[in-house]
Amino acid sequence: MSGPQSDIEALIGLMARLPGLGPRSARRAVLHLLRKRSLLMAPLADAMARAARDTRNCGICGNLTSGDFCAICQDPARSDREICVVEDVADLWAMEAAGIFRGRYHVLGGRLSPLDGIGPEELRVPDLVRRVSTKGSDEVILALSTTVDGQSTAHYIADALTGTGVKTSTLAQGVPVGGELDYLDEGTISAALRARRSF
Amino acid sequence: MSGPQSDIEALIGLMARLPGLGPRSARRAVLHLLRKRSLLMAPLADAMARAARDTRNCGICGNLTSGDFCAICQDPARSDREICVVEDVADLWAMEAAGIFRGRYHVLGGRLSPLDGIGPEELRVPDLVRRVSTKGSDEVILALSTTVDGQSTAHYIADALTGTGVKTSTLAQGVPVGGELDYLDEGTISAALRARRSF
Ligand SMILES: [Zn+2]
Ligand SMILES: [Zn+2]
Repeated sequence: MSGPQSDIEALIGLMARLPGLGPRSARRAVLHLLRKRSLLMAPLADAMARAARDTRNCGICGNLTSGDFCAICQDPARSDREICVVEDVADLWAMEAAGIFRGRYHVLGGRLSPLDGIGPEELRVPDLVRRVSTKGSDEVILALSTTVDGQSTAHYIADALTGTGVKTSTLAQGVPVGGELDYLDEGTISAALRARRSF
Repeated sequence: MSGPQSDIEALIGLMARLPGLGPRSARRAVLHLLRKRSLLMAPLADAMARAARDTRNCGICGNLTSGDFCAICQDPARSDREICVVEDVADLWAMEAAGIFRGRYHVLGGRLSPLDGIGPEELRVPDLVRRVSTKGSDEVILALSTTVDGQSTAHYIADALTGTGVKTSTLAQGVPVGGELDYLDEGTISAALRARRSF
């Protein structure tokens, strides 16, 4: 394709690395942006640069935030008594979209995977244990995916928390086996949270 | 959704305005970017800002370019004898992807639509006539879409060019009726160009 200049080609190449956009749809998206250079492209570039610069992981829960601590950890209306453990920020967002959980989160940032060098420290499990002990939490909800790795991670965390005396539970009804939390609809997530069972 | 910060929500809103991305896939795309802040998000923001700032329309053909004139108009290996008239830069890109046209372009930027106030001046038809006369072009290929508006635009341009003595042709075989050029595969475009007929 010799039509677009190399700058535009480079932009298309970067856009094509987004999930849901192939090379063809990336080209169409870039063209759309180039047609709306001042109304859409410049503001989007700005918002993206700002987010890339200012976003970091919350020092408490691991959620994405532009400050040191995220809005959820700073919200006085939310309770430390329940901590919901999720693999990923996407899962936290999905939980929040369901809108019925009023506790705090712990974002693991993955699942235990010794072969990939992902152990308890990488997932900040010791931090979680410390947090539960310090804050005197009543319950840790292990909202991990129902894959083999997700479930063995949940078991590991439940074991690690035994000494704290906290109750551990897991999302129940409604989570399809082998499914990722992030893809569920909000009703399913609400039902699964309400019907959670002891782990 | 109270998980993401408002900056991130604003970014998701902008991303959702791209063709091919709904609110849900925009959220996933932004999350992907936030996970790759330095490797993907910052470079993408940069490339986008640069393109938004530097891109303009070629003073000769209307193609997008970062200079005054596009690479195609500046390429000495390409010929002024054939000028391909397209509605949109997307169509020019699609033609270039087919890789068999070695002439120059004229990008109309739309189709004649008197009700929307889009007349020959808006599509720079007088510029095209002047260009054809000045450069002594042999043929103008009217590669417009096979919609009613596209075809009446082609007829108008063919009429406007009568005085110049240039031959006008149109893409033939392979362009589906009612179809947009931009969606065609490269083989179809090649075949249509080879089998072009006098207008
Ligand atoms: Zn937090
Ligand atoms: Zn040009």
